[in-house]
Amino acid sequence: MKPIEVADAGPEARAVLEDIMATRGVTDVNNFWKYLANEPRMLAHVWASLKELMGPGALDPLTKELIYVAVSITNNCEYCMASHTAAARAKGATDAQINELIAVVGLANMTNRLANGYRVPVDPQFRNSDAAPKT
Amino acid sequence: MKPIEVADAGPEARAVLEDIMATRGVTDVNNFWKYLANEPRMLAHVWASLKELMGPGALDPLTKELIYVAVSITNNCEYCMASHTAAARAKGATDAQINELIAVVGLANMTNRLANGYRVPVDPQFRNSDAAPKT
Amino acid sequence: MKPIEVADAGPEARAVLEDIMATRGVTDVNNFWKYLANEPRMLAHVWASLKELMGPGALDPLTKELIYVAVSITNNCEYCMASHTAAARAKGATDAQINELIAVVGLANMTNRLANGYRVPVDPQFRNSDAAPKT
Amino acid sequence: MKPIEVADAGPEARAVLEDIMATRGVTDVNNFWKYLANEPRMLAHVWASLKELMGPGALDPLTKELIYVAVSITNNCEYCMASHTAAARAKGATDAQINELIAVVGLANMTNRLANGYRVPVDPQFRNSDAAPKT
Amino acid sequence: MKPIEVADAGPEARAVLEDIMATRGVTDVNNFWKYLANEPRMLAHVWASLKELMGPGALDPLTKELIYVAVSITNNCEYCMASHTAAARAKGATDAQINELIAVVGLANMTNRLANGYRVPVDPQFRNSDAAPKT
Amino acid sequence: MKPIEVADAGPEARAVLEDIMATRGVTDVNNFWKYLANEPRMLAHVWASLKELMGPGALDPLTKELIYVAVSITNNCEYCMASHTAAARAKGATDAQINELIAVVGLANMTNRLANGYRVPVDPQFRNSDAAPKT
Repeated sequence: MKPIEVADAGPEARAVLEDIMATRGVTDVNNFWKYLANEPRMLAHVWASLKELMGPGALDPLTKELIYVAVSITNNCEYCMASHTAAARAKGATDAQINELIAVVGLANMTNRLANGYRVPVDPQFRNSDAAPKT
Repeated sequence: MKPIEVADAGPEARAVLEDIMATRGVTDVNNFWKYLANEPRMLAHVWASLKELMGPGALDPLTKELIYVAVSITNNCEYCMASHTAAARAKGATDAQINELIAVVGLANMTNRLANGYRVPVDPQFRNSDAAPKT
Repeated sequence: MKPIEVADAGPEARAVLEDIMATRGVTDVNNFWKYLANEPRMLAHVWASLKELMGPGALDPLTKELIYVAVSITNNCEYCMASHTAAARAKGATDAQINELIAVVGLANMTNRLANGYRVPVDPQFRNSDAAPKT
Repeated sequence: MKPIEVADAGPEARAVLEDIMATRGVTDVNNFWKYLANEPRMLAHVWASLKELMGPGALDPLTKELIYVAVSITNNCEYCMASHTAAARAKGATDAQINELIAVVGLANMTNRLANGYRVPVDPQFRNSDAAPKT
Repeated sequence: MKPIEVADAGPEARAVLEDIMATRGVTDVNNFWKYLANEPRMLAHVWASLKELMGPGALDPLTKELIYVAVSITNNCEYCMASHTAAARAKGATDAQINELIAVVGLANMTNRLANGYRVPVDPQFRNSDAAPKT
Repeated sequence: MKPIEVADAGPEARAVLEDIMATRGVTDVNNFWKYLANEPRMLAHVWASLKELMGPGALDPLTKELIYVAVSITNNCEYCMASHTAAARAKGATDAQINELIAVVGLANMTNRLANGYRVPVDPQFRNSDAAPKT
């Protein structure tokens, strides 16, 4: 599938691409959006979701970019690592933070398998914690 | 493999388990550590790593717990989700933050596959961003 | 490991490679088979399995190629995405179908993690549906 | 996190849950939606995406349910396997089709790793196929 | 899908199940085979592959069982962990070996993500090593 | 992030890098360590873990390298496949062994999904085997 430039997009995709540019204050969109423009319905849903969920909310935008990078490293998505690391830096992430993030992602992937390998039963207090969350 | 209680652990494992209890101010350790005590060398390394990396650093401890949960959801490690969600709550995470975290993890897993599926090439500016990081 | 050309293959591997060419009506095999020829026993089993399962059956061959692409995107296997997308196109898949496939794969990867993240219990009617399938 | 019944949902989530029931002609929603109601913004986006993409389109709804099951098996999401297998059956999937689907998913996961393990280079004709798709 | 007992299997599946019992010197087959009997073609291929590849070969059978467990832990397949750990023990694996295996699997999953996260380029000597293997 | 050469590393990272060189009897370290040197704490922990666990133990070093390769293929970590395949060859692995390893990894990834797809319940004897291990 080929990328679709903003000027070549049909009306449905173009409206989304222009909203991306307007929201971000840029004059072009990243490759991700140009490829996703091949499926305008999905383009619209993905953008609407990210626009609402990745902005300010219960978590600050930088934390959410770091979470995005953590998932992308775990799944080995090179594009997503590059784009969301750049987004994290644009929101203020330092080298020290990126390095620590990568370390934590490595540790989590390790202990995930240790817990699986030993089939460790969930401690009762962890279930209680979830049943009576602090809100 | 069976869990090893602190009182039954050999000296190498017991020293680690006691340091976990002392560091956390608790009188017992979670199941994870009791199972890992079957391999005292790994127990020592895992604890030393988590003790140093998961405490205060470039990222605050809550952010690191959220990253841990994000990886654990992606890998579907039930034990790790439960234990690190509890740890995140103990460090102040609210329901709204946990809910937003799960949403972001879902979105990242989706866009990871969209980027893979379209084999989206990395934009040059993302590579530049990495080559000249803000430090 | 290096690829093994048909002319250079030992008798066990060569018989399989020639059956692939005869079955598909082609004069050479794809790289996948040339590498797999390094392990002739596995080459024979993989080809026998694909030959029997990927042809006409309970599901039509195009549907099975789309399923193959879906798994390959989820696992981020670039070779498999390329080869099975080509196979799906050869069996009639349109751009619109490929785009919709990628979208569905993205959505499934998202909701898989949302279901994991909330540890959603399986609804009783889904278990019943499985216990008394429509055949 | 606890499931939220329709009657207990806030207005934003309730509107989505009622649209799910109206669209599907049912009087209650599955557990997945009750848990997702904890994050009404994500609930709205996920439902809007599935409503638009999983219905009739370039691919028929049954094929899309099978794709969903294929991804869910690959990721080992028990809830998603159960719910989408039930959905596939409701759309007419037979036991023979489900069995063949599982077989194909197994084969794809195997050949994904064989291709990775040998680092098989993508054949030029597969790249060409993608550059000049049949539409 | 329900398991199919040997006595209830159709002739194609039954022949495979009986060969499993004869080969292993047992009077019943494990649940895995009873479920796979729902798809007799796949049952035959899977058994033929495992019978040929998992026995004595370039690698000894115990090493291959350990590799099987390592993959199963990484993918979090509870059934496969249990059955192949049992098979490894039956072939002589000690607790110390199982514990060390789990540790190595944890480390590999960690360093896989560290290498991904830093996008570490492959060293030239590793490529050379592969191009001129010791045989 | 950029690789850090041994001569440019700070004292904490440099001590680790020099221990790697001394232990392995080499005059430079692989790219993996140069990148990990960006996070000296993690560098120290990863090296300490690998140094202790990957050497002679309950399992021989070659078996452990093969396990490492198996996990790396499953996760599709190209760097790790290359480096640990080279390490396995350096410890004596033959082409026949590497080929058989890749085959077993493929089979395990397949049967993992077959077991998941059928939600095969763990046989009682596998649970017993684990509860009363042969040591």
